Amino acid sequence: MATTFPKETTGRLMDRNCLALNHSLTIEQAVRYVRDNVENKTNIHYVYVIDDNKILQGVLSLRELLASSGELPVTAVMTKKVVSLPTNMDQEKAALVFQDTDFVSIPVVNEFDQLVGVLHVEDMLDVMEQEATEDFHKMAPVSSLDVSLKDAKITTLYRKRIVWLVVLVFMNVFSGAGIAHFEDIIEANLALVFFLPLLVDSGGNAGSQASTLVIRAMAVGEVRMRDWMKMFTKEISVSILLGLTMAAAVAGVGVFRGGPDIALVVALTMVAVVIVGSLIGMSLPFIFNKLKLDPATASAPLITSIADIVGVLIYFSIASALLSL
Amino acid sequence: MATTFPKETTGRLMDRNCLALNHSLTIEQAVRYVRDNVENKTNIHYVYVIDDNKILQGVLSLRELLASSGELPVTAVMTKKVVSLPTNMDQEKAALVFQDTDFVSIPVVNEFDQLVGVLHVEDMLDVMEQEATEDFHKMAPVSSLDVSLKDAKITTLYRKRIVWLVVLVFMNVFSGAGIAHFEDIIEANLALVFFLPLLVDSGGNAGSQASTLVIRAMAVGEVRMRDWMKMFTKEISVSILLGLTMAAAVAGVGVFRGGPDIALVVALTMVAVVIVGSLIGMSLPFIFNKLKLDPATASAPLITSIADIVGVLIYFSIASALLSL
Repeated sequence: MATTFPKETTGRLMDRNCLALNHSLTIEQAVRYVRDNVENKTNIHYVYVIDDNKILQGVLSLRELLASSGELPVTAVMTKKVVSLPTNMDQEKAALVFQDTDFVSIPVVNEFDQLVGVLHVEDMLDVMEQEATEDFHKMAPVSSLDVSLKDAKITTLYRKRIVWLVVLVFMNVFSGAGIAHFEDIIEANLALVFFLPLLVDSGGNAGSQASTLVIRAMAVGEVRMRDWMKMFTKEISVSILLGLTMAAAVAGVGVFRGGPDIALVVALTMVAVVIVGSLIGMSLPFIFNKLKLDPATASAPLITSIADIVGVLIYFSIASALLSL
Repeated sequence: MATTFPKETTGRLMDRNCLALNHSLTIEQAVRYVRDNVENKTNIHYVYVIDDNKILQGVLSLRELLASSGELPVTAVMTKKVVSLPTNMDQEKAALVFQDTDFVSIPVVNEFDQLVGVLHVEDMLDVMEQEATEDFHKMAPVSSLDVSLKDAKITTLYRKRIVWLVVLVFMNVFSGAGIAHFEDIIEANLALVFFLPLLVDSGGNAGSQASTLVIRAMAVGEVRMRDWMKMFTKEISVSILLGLTMAAAVAGVGVFRGGPDIALVVALTMVAVVIVGSLIGMSLPFIFNKLKLDPATASAPLITSIADIVGVLIYFSIASALLSL
């Protein structure tokens, strides 16, 4: 009987303590049964009707029990189309069902459709907070932290943070290699270096915005895999507008710090890195999802590192093409 | 009667449709009253007891109504200590009360303690999702997006994203100015440029982790202003460990790409930027909170931009000190 269900499933989270009525009872018998049995059960808002094999047949709210006349059979009053959840459902999915249906409790059934427990909406509040925290931490990116930040040990925090930091360091080595590749053009135009953080960061920032919007929209079920093309097309338009505005914003600084040639390179690069960064940021959560990875892995720091590499290549390629003339 | 309460408050969100019993009734009269009145009311799980001035006196669950004997007065059965919420409470705070108390409904009272409505837990699911989405979008950073991402117009997305992008661009101009200041040392040691993205990003990444952890812990009420010193002290230890590990990770690359002198500069800079970045990232949400700004404004892209400026200054200062010898 005391099966242990996997962590973060409806089976693990459910309350086994629920009121089940046999389908042969009348409303009056049901009211008496409830009166005799609810004393030690808190949190009862619905009673469930089952057949002799414990298979879920219907549901009655206490309100319906109170409002119906006693001689009717419960099967005449109950709602027959019962929303129920399987025991192996992920708790995050269960929370979405509660959001969509507005029930305060939903019965949980096993593979034979037998009633085994009930899930309460108030437990979903904790689930939603826990899942949102997990998603937030992935944005950092930090490995999932099971304890309170205040109480977490120094060594725990170290372990949760170091892996991603080192991964990102090695990604950044590629940016360095990219810069090394363009050593000559940099040596000839040292002013290019002044604009390096500004340009690569702008691509990363635009990409972070795009990925954060998509990650959240996916998490709440607002955007699905099939929306990729639509989102991609829209992102092209948005990012062109963003890129042009930002190019205009930096062109003046470019002229002042490097002269008109450098300003042209900087402005063109800005448009290109914002568009490319945005499209990468928008697409990566879809790609991760397709690869069965969590879309939230496409966090701001990861996007920033990718945008750095791409930004370095775009910047010095444009500079090489325009400044060598 | 039809007062309009401010957006995102309990008053705006409450259901005015709740069952109130006069305190003079018996259980039997109460059951009859509920039977006669629940027909058109969905979502009834508790009935509230009020006096002749509509002042909230107590609460009874339908379960208690069903389980009590009819001749008792409702005042003998009801729970007198009622958790209630004022009409002007922020919806996010109300959701925290639901999480702490595990009620499915909580009554809402006006300034005279008169019952004016009831708040349902299933509406809190939407509140929590909405608030988490707002916080996520601030992390991007994107101005609050009221519509679905899929349906948002191109011009809306542009407006929500451009402000922060331009702000961050102008912050990055300072990084460029910092680099320009160190033009001579860069010209003499061009290999320093290869490590620029790696070092400044590492400070930003460590800082983003620290700020994201604190922002989330503050949002769920786990960390408060008074915890600043404790968190700061702990962050010093964590960031020293992180910095040393990352310095070890890049020292090899430093020797290979720039020789032992550059490697020493890179390793020392790495330790310094990770510590400084982490402490800034950890502190900024506290500072914003102190200034009555949303802590979530201390997002990864903002931290990255600040860490860039600081990183450039630290890097080339250390380089100037060690390489000019």
